[in-house]
Amino acid sequence: MDYQQLLSDAMGAARHAAGTGRVADYIPALAAADPDAFGMALATAEGEVFGVGAWEQPFSIQSISKLFTLTHVLAQGGDDIWKGVGREPSGNTFNSLVQLETERGIPRNPFINAGAIVVTDRLQSLTGDAAGAVRAFLRAESENPLIDTDRAVAASEAEHGHRNAALAHFIASHGNLENSVEVVLEQYYAHCAIEASCRDLALAGRFLARYGLRANGSRLLSRSEAKRVNAVLLTCGTYDAAGEFAYRVGLPGKSGVGGGILAIVPGRAAVCAWSPGLDKAGNSVSAVAALDAFSTASGLSVF
Amino acid sequence: MDYQQLLSDAMGAARHAAGTGRVADYIPALAAADPDAFGMALATAEGEVFGVGAWEQPFSIQSISKLFTLTHVLAQGGDDIWKGVGREPSGNTFNSLVQLETERGIPRNPFINAGAIVVTDRLQSLTGDAAGAVRAFLRAESENPLIDTDRAVAASEAEHGHRNAALAHFIASHGNLENSVEVVLEQYYAHCAIEASCRDLALAGRFLARYGLRANGSRLLSRSEAKRVNAVLLTCGTYDAAGEFAYRVGLPGKSGVGGGILAIVPGRAAVCAWSPGLDKAGNSVSAVAALDAFSTASGLSVF
Amino acid sequence: MDYQQLLSDAMGAARHAAGTGRVADYIPALAAADPDAFGMALATAEGEVFGVGAWEQPFSIQSISKLFTLTHVLAQGGDDIWKGVGREPSGNTFNSLVQLETERGIPRNPFINAGAIVVTDRLQSLTGDAAGAVRAFLRAESENPLIDTDRAVAASEAEHGHRNAALAHFIASHGNLENSVEVVLEQYYAHCAIEASCRDLALAGRFLARYGLRANGSRLLSRSEAKRVNAVLLTCGTYDAAGEFAYRVGLPGKSGVGGGILAIVPGRAAVCAWSPGLDKAGNSVSAVAALDAFSTASGLSVF
Amino acid sequence: MDYQQLLSDAMGAARHAAGTGRVADYIPALAAADPDAFGMALATAEGEVFGVGAWEQPFSIQSISKLFTLTHVLAQGGDDIWKGVGREPSGNTFNSLVQLETERGIPRNPFINAGAIVVTDRLQSLTGDAAGAVRAFLRAESENPLIDTDRAVAASEAEHGHRNAALAHFIASHGNLENSVEVVLEQYYAHCAIEASCRDLALAGRFLARYGLRANGSRLLSRSEAKRVNAVLLTCGTYDAAGEFAYRVGLPGKSGVGGGILAIVPGRAAVCAWSPGLDKAGNSVSAVAALDAFSTASGLSVF
Repeated sequence: MDYQQLLSDAMGAARHAAGTGRVADYIPALAAADPDAFGMALATAEGEVFGVGAWEQPFSIQSISKLFTLTHVLAQGGDDIWKGVGREPSGNTFNSLVQLETERGIPRNPFINAGAIVVTDRLQSLTGDAAGAVRAFLRAESENPLIDTDRAVAASEAEHGHRNAALAHFIASHGNLENSVEVVLEQYYAHCAIEASCRDLALAGRFLARYGLRANGSRLLSRSEAKRVNAVLLTCGTYDAAGEFAYRVGLPGKSGVGGGILAIVPGRAAVCAWSPGLDKAGNSVSAVAALDAFSTASGLSVF
Repeated sequence: MDYQQLLSDAMGAARHAAGTGRVADYIPALAAADPDAFGMALATAEGEVFGVGAWEQPFSIQSISKLFTLTHVLAQGGDDIWKGVGREPSGNTFNSLVQLETERGIPRNPFINAGAIVVTDRLQSLTGDAAGAVRAFLRAESENPLIDTDRAVAASEAEHGHRNAALAHFIASHGNLENSVEVVLEQYYAHCAIEASCRDLALAGRFLARYGLRANGSRLLSRSEAKRVNAVLLTCGTYDAAGEFAYRVGLPGKSGVGGGILAIVPGRAAVCAWSPGLDKAGNSVSAVAALDAFSTASGLSVF
Repeated sequence: MDYQQLLSDAMGAARHAAGTGRVADYIPALAAADPDAFGMALATAEGEVFGVGAWEQPFSIQSISKLFTLTHVLAQGGDDIWKGVGREPSGNTFNSLVQLETERGIPRNPFINAGAIVVTDRLQSLTGDAAGAVRAFLRAESENPLIDTDRAVAASEAEHGHRNAALAHFIASHGNLENSVEVVLEQYYAHCAIEASCRDLALAGRFLARYGLRANGSRLLSRSEAKRVNAVLLTCGTYDAAGEFAYRVGLPGKSGVGGGILAIVPGRAAVCAWSPGLDKAGNSVSAVAALDAFSTASGLSVF
Repeated sequence: MDYQQLLSDAMGAARHAAGTGRVADYIPALAAADPDAFGMALATAEGEVFGVGAWEQPFSIQSISKLFTLTHVLAQGGDDIWKGVGREPSGNTFNSLVQLETERGIPRNPFINAGAIVVTDRLQSLTGDAAGAVRAFLRAESENPLIDTDRAVAASEAEHGHRNAALAHFIASHGNLENSVEVVLEQYYAHCAIEASCRDLALAGRFLARYGLRANGSRLLSRSEAKRVNAVLLTCGTYDAAGEFAYRVGLPGKSGVGGGILAIVPGRAAVCAWSPGLDKAGNSVSAVAALDAFSTASGLSVF
């Protein structure tokens, strides 16, 4: 399969969506991004890497980090995490408190903010440094030691983070946090504010295309676990537009408000597209368009 | 009207409800209360005071303080408070986040926790010491200089206060707090943890029976404002059992999870009943029974 | 008290609100009304009647009929009705299905549509002709034998009544209807489509100002029951603006989308104002303004 | 791949789940089923058929019919259906009214009851006989002319169908039905009450494994449409347990309260398992267990 050509064509499709998205503006650091910047990279299961556009430019990975916190909790702690967080689509906006209230502090899935706070809490208990664990993994898989948290972004998120603080306190009121709200939020902001490129993320997500095997051949997740993480990505990975993403793209994927989306082609490749302009659901307009074009042209949708 | 006899009869009715309520147990300090302790006091518009049972025993006034924070904001700041808080019954449990989410951070009324947090914030802006203002007013009206915040209770509430912290952060995320979450919650806990007796509270509530006139003859609220506060008390003062309280008792009233209820007979008297055993809605079983018996026997319901 | 003068002044106040309301337009028959038509009548407990404006012009009483269905069920069947309907303010729009779903088919109170459907069902069981019972009562109290259902309006409501049909079927699915959905809705539309004037309604509501005594001196409700109906009116009678109505007017009242509001001054009088222009909550803008002016000027608020 | 062995092993796994499910009992006809009856069939893309247990025994297909109504609307009418129904997971129980109320009569997806009512309405508009179209398709694909609606079941569903009637009226109140509520519900019950066997359904679902090609080689859906239907099945096909089904089984599937589940292995096969005992979400306990075992042993999950 000519991946380089597929990426080029996908970038062409993304160009048609340019100008329609809106950059996340709840913190100044994200608001400054160029809405129409675009990059896309693909890493095959065998280790080849392809890229187009600004595929090596670092951006704020934001919620894409939640994929890595979840897999690390699963890798270290087994299935206990599912007692504190569900794995059903939320059917509500990604930071909804309503669901928490009606479901007694158990977030619907690990990829909405509330669920990611619980996952961060558990990873903190397991490692003592949740954000550090994510950074170390990203550096190792991408062989890029420069990957780091943007401290200014993390601080800015914390400053504007009343809503996440509300979620965390609410979860704590139901006894579903092991660490203090302050510690959990600090770690949460630290892993969300990591900067990485499409190239870095495609390489870091490759283990899910390899059924759990890391770049060095060691096993992070069992085959069954890796498949199940892909299932949760498909049903819950793109906020409350997961149905639409499955319909259009047909691949497991995780998006972030920094404009990145990391998608998995099981058995084949991990592919990451990035463009800061977002749609109403918080997903990158151009990245979705590029992945849509890619899966249509390649026939690599899982369906 | 023989108020002393009415109170004695009301206490008799309350005795029949003994044993059915459950003491608030979310903090140790409240959980230690005797569920069947009972006291009741009435202060007439003219200044007479009557009492039965443990009517001079101090207890934690809790949400009854919200009546005084509201009236002081109205007394000092006018009607601006109604931009940040509504005056409709909530139709939900008293600490619900759902309503806040669907109504963009404007609490339904000043007596649910969320609304009281907003009112405390505004009183803090107006006075620099919200809890101090409430204490000073209670002391002055009751001529009891010993009224004070129980610091142990306030600290314990803060320690177990994740739910209120969630509410405050959520309100702040909608830009509806002027002070920091930390300051507002500190003041909130400080006025909720005030200890006062039925006697003290009946005297302190007397201005609402006197259409706004304080004990010393000065005016706290205009006649119209006083009537309107009574209206909000009737429709919103007893959590999500306001309809039931209006149906059974027929008087404006404010309850607290310490077991106290302060009710107003417009033009006539303020009456406070107290017993720590609570019903599911958070209102004192015996205090409601006593006020029910009182209003039925006296015919003093507003309807 | 110079009631005639008070009514004249109230009409003056209402004139200032003219032009701001919007006529109910979900059925053609109501949409044709003049938004600024206005009438107001007051019937004292002793039997005097006063009126201003179009106080003798019949209009569609709509939800005001719900006050009469409730009192007739209470008069005939005692308190059993409260097993099938609550008496708490709803905190939601008047035709909400959400509440029914979360509270297992028990409507919050007898004055929201869902609750009124349950009350109509019970009155149908008790009388075999729910709407006929309401008509007979209105005719007797007002000594106006011409009061009748407007069949065209009832038919039009039925035709556009998918939402009420949804409510009724939903209640039936919870086993909370004794009669068939078809029969209940037919009766419901028949009593809502009764035409009566301010004069008629003030006379018909007089028994609530007389603590349960009808015009002929017979007792419809016990003193206690009458007071309790007033309490439910105050907390639930004006859709989800009950708090606002209590705050501004301070009287128990029931509104209808035909533009009428019937309010009770316990011990004194029943007063009905009418003007078809509605606010967002479905209450007549000018009728609320007139009642506000009346209660302020007279000092007759219950608070 | 030895499909016969895989089915035998899956039946063995299902046997372990026996005794834990509860038969749907909202109508007598379904309540009489043996909770532990079991059958399973697989039809390959090439046309081979395998079966174990009671794989040729007809059962009530119930909501599985919704897969066929949707595909026929798409086959005939194109994408217009997506204006009247969404394609996001619902995050609520399958017959929820709440979502309809907050989203103005547009059901979340075509597989919850509300959405299926809209789809039935559109298919009725397109064909004049929605249920007949489904029956004809099932008969043709399975070469079983005996497939038919069980009229007693359909009548019983209609009799106990207040909740679906509420949904339909509510949707109609938002202008989202083209036909009358009565006609739509009649068709809805008629296609839900079709009886077919695992064998029949596996053959009828085979076109989704063949990317849109029917048994006779004609095209029902384009390749892209077929993939997209599979995506909607995966995210929405098993009520509010779609996340769990994706996690455990990893295949697009549609369940019914008759106990059947039809799952698709894209490019390979359609497989149907049946056992009447249901879990809380309304999915067959043993059928899920069998499909879980099948996808795990075969490695045929899409992830």
